[in-house]
Amino acid sequence: MSYLTPPLGRLVGAFQKLPGIGPKSAQRLAFHILKQPQSTVEELAQALLDAKAQIRFCSICSNLSAQDPCELCTHPQRSKATICIVADSRDVLALEKTHEYTGSYHVLQGLISPMDGIGPEQLKIRELVQRLREHLQADGQIDEIIFALSPSIEGEATTLYLSKLLRPMQIRMSRIAYGLPMGGDLEFADEVTLARAMEGRQEI
Amino acid sequence: MSYLTPPLGRLVGAFQKLPGIGPKSAQRLAFHILKQPQSTVEELAQALLDAKAQIRFCSICSNLSAQDPCELCTHPQRSKATICIVADSRDVLALEKTHEYTGSYHVLQGLISPMDGIGPEQLKIRELVQRLREHLQADGQIDEIIFALSPSIEGEATTLYLSKLLRPMQIRMSRIAYGLPMGGDLEFADEVTLARAMEGRQEI
Repeated sequence: MSYLTPPLGRLVGAFQKLPGIGPKSAQRLAFHILKQPQSTVEELAQALLDAKAQIRFCSICSNLSAQDPCELCTHPQRSKATICIVADSRDVLALEKTHEYTGSYHVLQGLISPMDGIGPEQLKIRELVQRLREHLQADGQIDEIIFALSPSIEGEATTLYLSKLLRPMQIRMSRIAYGLPMGGDLEFADEVTLARAMEGRQEI
Repeated sequence: MSYLTPPLGRLVGAFQKLPGIGPKSAQRLAFHILKQPQSTVEELAQALLDAKAQIRFCSICSNLSAQDPCELCTHPQRSKATICIVADSRDVLALEKTHEYTGSYHVLQGLISPMDGIGPEQLKIRELVQRLREHLQADGQIDEIIFALSPSIEGEATTLYLSKLLRPMQIRMSRIAYGLPMGGDLEFADEVTLARAMEGRQEI
């Protein structure tokens, strides 16, 4: 695309590096930017730089935040005695949207995946163990650790690894239910989901 | 989404203002940005600011460019005697990709659309008329004006308006062919396209 005027070419190139944005979308976004008022463009540019510069891992839960400790770790109404373990900061957002959970989180920032060269040491597991130890040493109580990882090979492996690792601490551990999604049709559910739903059946 | 740490919330908000990017995509892009190296993020921010600051309308053809006159207007091998009229700078890119056209362009930066309050005076039509006049007065020759506007109501109206406006200059005018697209199936073509294809039939 040598006929693109250089600053436009660079912008299209930069947009194309974003996930899910192909050459056509990148071009459309770039032309959209040119039509926006100066202030809107500056706002986006500043938001990019600010987010990158200000957001760090929370030193307690490893969630992404501009504060340290993060908003959730410092929230007075969140229980420190229940810790929900998730893979990604986006999972925290998803769980927060349910408005059901009032405990704390620990974000692993990934899942164990030997195929991608991700072992336990690449995840925020050392931070989790240290957090639990410090909490228990300070006479804090931990009622429950809830594993909320995706029902994938990586998710299962990570849950298994962590449950073994944390077993000596004698904390109650649970994992979120796997089964039919709400509104899902039993007829169209895959075998593994159905098998898990049968396994996880609850008394009524 | 008050549980988003503020700089992240602002970035998600800024992404969401882009066309075709909903809340989920905006969130995905924002988290992607956090995982990128500082240099990549700065590159995108700078590309945004540069494109906005440096790109202007070419004073000859009204195309968007960082140069004035633009790369195409100053290109030594592009004929000034043939002018292709398009609605948008993206149309120039689309035509350039064919590598078939070696004349100049004039970008209207829109189409006449009374429904959207866009009349001839909002388009780069004054610039076109002045360009043609100056060119003819300087004893320059114009062989042909090619209308390459979309086959829509707005495109047709704009072609009609301009062809009437330019008629007194006695320049040969043409418009690109409307018909079956390559690889298209006659059976599935709509009536209007088929009628246009019949009308525009050529001797073989």
